Amino acid sequence: MQFAKLLCSLTLAVAAFAADAGIWKVAPPPPASWQRDRVADLSARRKALMDQIGDRSVLILYAAEPRNYAGDVDWPFRQENDFFYLTGLTQPGAILVLAPGAEKIREMVFIPHSNPSRESWTGHMITAAEARETSGIQDVLEAGQFRGFFTALIPRSRALIPAPAEGGVPSGPGGVPSVPGGGTDATPPTSTPDWTTGFAKPIAYSAKQELQLYMILPARPNAVEYRREQEFAGKLASVGAGVNILDATTLFDNLRRVKSQREIEILQHAVDITAEAFQRATAAALPGAPEYEIQAQFEFTFLRRNGHWGYPCIVGSGNNATTLHYQSNKDSMKAGDLLLMDDAAEFDQYSADVTRTIPVSGKFTKEQADIYRLVWEAQQAGFAMAKPGHAASGGPDSIQGAAGEVFKQGLFKLGLITDPKSDAQMRIWFNHGISHGIGLNVHDPGGRELQPGMVITVEPGLYFRPDALQNLPKTPEMEQFAEAIRPVFEKYKGIGVRIEDDVLITAGDPKIISAAIPSKLEEVEAGIAKLRQAIKTTPMP
Amino acid sequence: MQFAKLLCSLTLAVAAFAADAGIWKVAPPPPASWQRDRVADLSARRKALMDQIGDRSVLILYAAEPRNYAGDVDWPFRQENDFFYLTGLTQPGAILVLAPGAEKIREMVFIPHSNPSRESWTGHMITAAEARETSGIQDVLEAGQFRGFFTALIPRSRALIPAPAEGGVPSGPGGVPSVPGGGTDATPPTSTPDWTTGFAKPIAYSAKQELQLYMILPARPNAVEYRREQEFAGKLASVGAGVNILDATTLFDNLRRVKSQREIEILQHAVDITAEAFQRATAAALPGAPEYEIQAQFEFTFLRRNGHWGYPCIVGSGNNATTLHYQSNKDSMKAGDLLLMDDAAEFDQYSADVTRTIPVSGKFTKEQADIYRLVWEAQQAGFAMAKPGHAASGGPDSIQGAAGEVFKQGLFKLGLITDPKSDAQMRIWFNHGISHGIGLNVHDPGGRELQPGMVITVEPGLYFRPDALQNLPKTPEMEQFAEAIRPVFEKYKGIGVRIEDDVLITAGDPKIISAAIPSKLEEVEAGIAKLRQAIKTTPMP
Repeated sequence: MQFAKLLCSLTLAVAAFAADAGIWKVAPPPPASWQRDRVADLSARRKALMDQIGDRSVLILYAAEPRNYAGDVDWPFRQENDFFYLTGLTQPGAILVLAPGAEKIREMVFIPHSNPSRESWTGHMITAAEARETSGIQDVLEAGQFRGFFTALIPRSRALIPAPAEGGVPSGPGGVPSVPGGGTDATPPTSTPDWTTGFAKPIAYSAKQELQLYMILPARPNAVEYRREQEFAGKLASVGAGVNILDATTLFDNLRRVKSQREIEILQHAVDITAEAFQRATAAALPGAPEYEIQAQFEFTFLRRNGHWGYPCIVGSGNNATTLHYQSNKDSMKAGDLLLMDDAAEFDQYSADVTRTIPVSGKFTKEQADIYRLVWEAQQAGFAMAKPGHAASGGPDSIQGAAGEVFKQGLFKLGLITDPKSDAQMRIWFNHGISHGIGLNVHDPGGRELQPGMVITVEPGLYFRPDALQNLPKTPEMEQFAEAIRPVFEKYKGIGVRIEDDVLITAGDPKIISAAIPSKLEEVEAGIAKLRQAIKTTPMP
Repeated sequence: MQFAKLLCSLTLAVAAFAADAGIWKVAPPPPASWQRDRVADLSARRKALMDQIGDRSVLILYAAEPRNYAGDVDWPFRQENDFFYLTGLTQPGAILVLAPGAEKIREMVFIPHSNPSRESWTGHMITAAEARETSGIQDVLEAGQFRGFFTALIPRSRALIPAPAEGGVPSGPGGVPSVPGGGTDATPPTSTPDWTTGFAKPIAYSAKQELQLYMILPARPNAVEYRREQEFAGKLASVGAGVNILDATTLFDNLRRVKSQREIEILQHAVDITAEAFQRATAAALPGAPEYEIQAQFEFTFLRRNGHWGYPCIVGSGNNATTLHYQSNKDSMKAGDLLLMDDAAEFDQYSADVTRTIPVSGKFTKEQADIYRLVWEAQQAGFAMAKPGHAASGGPDSIQGAAGEVFKQGLFKLGLITDPKSDAQMRIWFNHGISHGIGLNVHDPGGRELQPGMVITVEPGLYFRPDALQNLPKTPEMEQFAEAIRPVFEKYKGIGVRIEDDVLITAGDPKIISAAIPSKLEEVEAGIAKLRQAIKTTPMP
């Protein structure tokens, strides 16, 4: 829905607190499928994963480590995405095991011992019954039992996993063992499966040195997110455990690339919350306000709709709009500035990713409009390629190719490049990728070839940093280029525009799931005017 | 200031956006001393630190590591507190060196190479001139030069510090080298000091194996915040570098315990932002609203005043108020609930720490009022002991001792303990510490003996978890106790009350710097009534 439509229903009566609807469209409640289809979704994913790894394999996933804020304070806990993708559990200190070749227990999850007398300090810890209900996994064991299982499977690993400590209040919130499998509680579990019969086949493969152990072990260096896994895999290899340790990253990339109907609806909800926030932010983006006021308006909306940001808010006014990852948000907005807002909600760990660029004054200048229209047209050209059989980049019929062609023609007409065929010149002003998948990661696994069920961004942008010409490579060609365009550049410098939408690939035309947030120049200006008129008489709720 | 006073100035005219002042008191601008006295404050701290460690010592502090959110997204960067305490710099990838015995350069800071062509991706990176102006440290070098310095000082460390890599865009935002001292840029620095003359004395001590190297190496296990330091110190020891590696934690604890005038004013500003937020939250805490709506109101206010939370918001209604570290904030508030809000702003990394407990309906029930008044009286008794010569705990004239005495008498009168002299019984209902320092950590270094210039919390609380009697130790005494109080307990179960204020210790009476947030029962009720009446006609801005 567009601002223009929203505002038809505007009532100028004084609104009572929380009666947001009079001024703008509030996000609807979460989709029914969110909880209704949760277990079906999770079970299907686990089945698909087990089909891929086969009977000789075991997959082990750890819940995320807490992230330290400072001293004894942590950032709010956020679950590791692949663990969440297969379990739906948000409990720290848990471990998932999938063993498709096992006789009895093919899926099991280990959770920290839930102790009511600790919960005064730790907050509620999930019970086995709750873990079963959320995940659909029937075998829920205690974290302290992981060692028994794992050493039954791989006897040489015994020395690598500390025995469960004697009971006592855990030092950190959530009671997360710092070493995987190192339980914090010695309370005897109600029952321990007989590992040697329940897992005879995987144990036999292990004895023959034919077991494949999958963990998340991304190849990229400095993957601090998976430090524990890397360390554990390294130690396991070093004790000669005779097991093939494999990285599961690609398996998850392949699974997560195409979204289920439920995932699409959750992403739509994250977008709906984002759309509500853009209205609030646009109303508040008045000359003189600090950029962090806009950040506050976004985060406020995300939180009160039970969401969060999916990535730190980017709110860049004036020259700051030309910095792609500007996050300091400390400057004040001036009437002549453009304001670039790359801000989106995450709901249930699924993140939208949306950018709009608006004039703080409410009206684009001629030069701002030149660039804005060009970016908008490039995006439209990109949308036309967002179909199965096309790719995000790599050829004239890709999203990047089609948008790039619009950019080259347009920039040449404006005099901002000297060669309408030069990708290299165009790339000076559009220096980032045009598309990526969204999902549990804001940069979710994507694929070269677009398929129905993928949800991707289309996000062209043009950025004229005031120091851009000084920072070009010092080659004769580039100096010649700089000289040729300098007079035109002077008119456009300081302008940064990005328009980013979230797009569902279907069998036919793409569905722009963030289309409710206006992006056409005339609709942006009309939306600002009506919204700001409305808040003069009806304060923002 | 109290709500009652604030609301005298209430105008019922429809307020324009951002005209907050009509409804409640908005936090004033940051104190003038914040920037004006920054360098003086930083310089005095460095001098005090150097005086303590002496000529044979060198102190090395790292800037904080970024904290991963998920995938390639990080949490917003927050500087390590001790590094910030001595430099005021918020740049990742920096290293501070203090060498009181050096001939020429006693203070220097290494910062990542600032490269304008990268800043499109990374955001602004601090320049040497900016680092000088912010910190007052004159010798600002490039991160890649740290290796040269350190191996001149401790030749055996050469293998431990990677040589600066060839140039190129860093993989993570902020361009932080993942290994201390491992610069990401090979750009030759403009000049390199002659280490052997500038640091002849420390180098000589090092050669004699008499050098003392101070780093932050806290004794507590799992100090993930200082993982790099621990690893580096371990490796340094393992190569037999002949240097005494010492933990600087206690030095900083001693320095940071007593606040400067500027720090007190910054803390007051964090409290003022917190006070503004409590008004907004109180107005919004209506029956039916979810707890996360209150969290949203707090974080909104913190962000729009250029602050942040100092610890994740605790918003517990009903039984959740009895969980000390409740952070899920997902339940909805009911009219008969108490709502415990332990929420405070951090400004420039200094955190307030305030708790209020209010009735969602606007009126306390008799049982809620019984407990509330008792907690309030215990706090008043604690305030009376918040003076030099007294201690936070450990005797009848300590804060804990005085408050505990009020609790014992009051709980006995209500029939919630059976022995008015029993600390153990009282501690069943008041099961946490009553006071801690605040500052750069929300749990800042404190000290047994109170001194003028300390800023501490006084935070008594009583919590009657519905399952409390079931979870008592299974001893005959405790079973007898449970039986005796059970009928009374049934009336009070589910009630949780904490009142927490921030207190500046002075030579005379303590100054309650959070007194503007009403806490006396009658003032809480009056404040709620007036605020909610006001927002019926004047929506919250």
